[in-house]
Amino acid sequence: MTVESSLRLPIIKVKAALSVGTSDALAIEEPLEIRLEHGPANQRQIQNISVTMRTPGNDAELALGFLFTEGIISSLTAVESINHCLITCAENKENIIQVCLTASSTPNLRNTERNFYTTSSCGVCGKGSINAIRTVSAFNHINNDDNSIDANTLYSLPDALRLNQAVFADTGGLHAAALFTNLGQLLLVREDVGRHNALDKLIGAAINQNWLPLKAHVLMLSGRASFELVQKAVMAGIKIIAAVGAPSTLAVQLAEEFNVTLIGFLRDERFNIYTAPQRVLLTRIILTTDERRN
Amino acid sequence: MTVESSLRLPIIKVKAALSVGTSDALAIEEPLEIRLEHGPANQRQIQNISVTMRTPGNDAELALGFLFTEGIISSLTAVESINHCLITCAENKENIIQVCLTASSTPNLRNTERNFYTTSSCGVCGKGSINAIRTVSAFNHINNDDNSIDANTLYSLPDALRLNQAVFADTGGLHAAALFTNLGQLLLVREDVGRHNALDKLIGAAINQNWLPLKAHVLMLSGRASFELVQKAVMAGIKIIAAVGAPSTLAVQLAEEFNVTLIGFLRDERFNIYTAPQRVLLTRIILTTDERRN
Repeated sequence: MTVESSLRLPIIKVKAALSVGTSDALAIEEPLEIRLEHGPANQRQIQNISVTMRTPGNDAELALGFLFTEGIISSLTAVESINHCLITCAENKENIIQVCLTASSTPNLRNTERNFYTTSSCGVCGKGSINAIRTVSAFNHINNDDNSIDANTLYSLPDALRLNQAVFADTGGLHAAALFTNLGQLLLVREDVGRHNALDKLIGAAINQNWLPLKAHVLMLSGRASFELVQKAVMAGIKIIAAVGAPSTLAVQLAEEFNVTLIGFLRDERFNIYTAPQRVLLTRIILTTDERRN
Repeated sequence: MTVESSLRLPIIKVKAALSVGTSDALAIEEPLEIRLEHGPANQRQIQNISVTMRTPGNDAELALGFLFTEGIISSLTAVESINHCLITCAENKENIIQVCLTASSTPNLRNTERNFYTTSSCGVCGKGSINAIRTVSAFNHINNDDNSIDANTLYSLPDALRLNQAVFADTGGLHAAALFTNLGQLLLVREDVGRHNALDKLIGAAINQNWLPLKAHVLMLSGRASFELVQKAVMAGIKIIAAVGAPSTLAVQLAEEFNVTLIGFLRDERFNIYTAPQRVLLTRIILTTDERRN
């Protein structure tokens, strides 16, 4: 079955003093429920883990990436199968996906009631959120300073990403996450109406390829870098993140804490380095200590 | 106490062949836990309702708007007080807010385990999501075609919004939601790292002003129009939504279902009308049936 990511609808297009009846391609948004089946053979149980509004396509990767980046499963070996559930409804959409774990695998479900950054002693402060990740990340000790990227290679990433954003080109309505080598070769792109979903799909695809930890790769984000996105990257062992948009304070604090290189505003041959600048090669760049902001 | 929405951090700015050590203002992102205290005087109970990553500031509006747009409370009269809880932690952040309901108010909590679009019979399809909103929205019968806006007024909204986005101007990192009159007068702007939080803050502020239903207003969104944002707007009785970015399919279906005018790609003197075009006055616009897309 082919999954559609966009849909063409009739619209009225207005420009300056002209109005035209035409049609427009829109990014599809539909709910996806992720269910988890686990337990020993005689005590199997099924739990609803999450409902997310996503763009259909790569649902199995999304479920796998979500369970991994939330710390519920720690490797692909825990997974027996991932399949859509058939439900009877007028629209007949494939909007439930069930992940079955092997009988010997125990999921870490203490974090599912609320997102796991709230389980630390303090509960709800930035420091608590960061500490919570330390306890569940399998790759938090990776400290790969051998992975580095040249400034000129960084300049090339946004165009490479845009050229491969098939649905965005149609709709202007999707976030993307992409995995590059540190020489600028594009390995994977995933798109979604939700930026966290795009990254979960990407990490799920990388898990399927047995690529984790992604310590020799570069993660490129089409939008802003929030705490949640850096959290997911840390869970996958990623050490270089480049975003087209701005990072938040907590995203920077988290990147700093795990020695992740965080780059923002990467566009038009410029970028800002927020953390761990040792992985950005500025060999052909003139270094100054000037305080001018341009 | 003054709440800071941005923070200045040291960065390395790289442009073409030049690298400069400087500093950059970043949007602050911190978790906020929303707690609800309710029940008769002798049986008060406190429940954790949600944790969201938000930009500090207008937290009481955020909590109020969230509880209202999720259908947990239906009016301000249910609320006795909203206050931050003092917690002891090294960072001493005001990251827990408690909403106390009056003894006679019963919150609708059947929707809090998962977002309410999953409570319909089907559970997880677009149609089910839309039907779930019909059951909880107090203003779903409003059908105000008297509210209309001129195309030229629409053209003026993005600049008016941008001029009033104080933190965005600093950081480039915040979403905004704004309420305008249909003559283009700006009434309220709220900003946040999360677009749903910006809208919850805006609706919370409008509830405090006793402005609901917002049937004579225009909602302007700085980014894309997702299902969740249109859902919140429908809950507040909003009939005209204009977004700088693209809408999703489900956002359009929801707007169509509730006869809400949904406008996307509003920028550079152009926009697309996706639903309910009768509220957009094109009097000085030449209407054509041409199929050209420019």
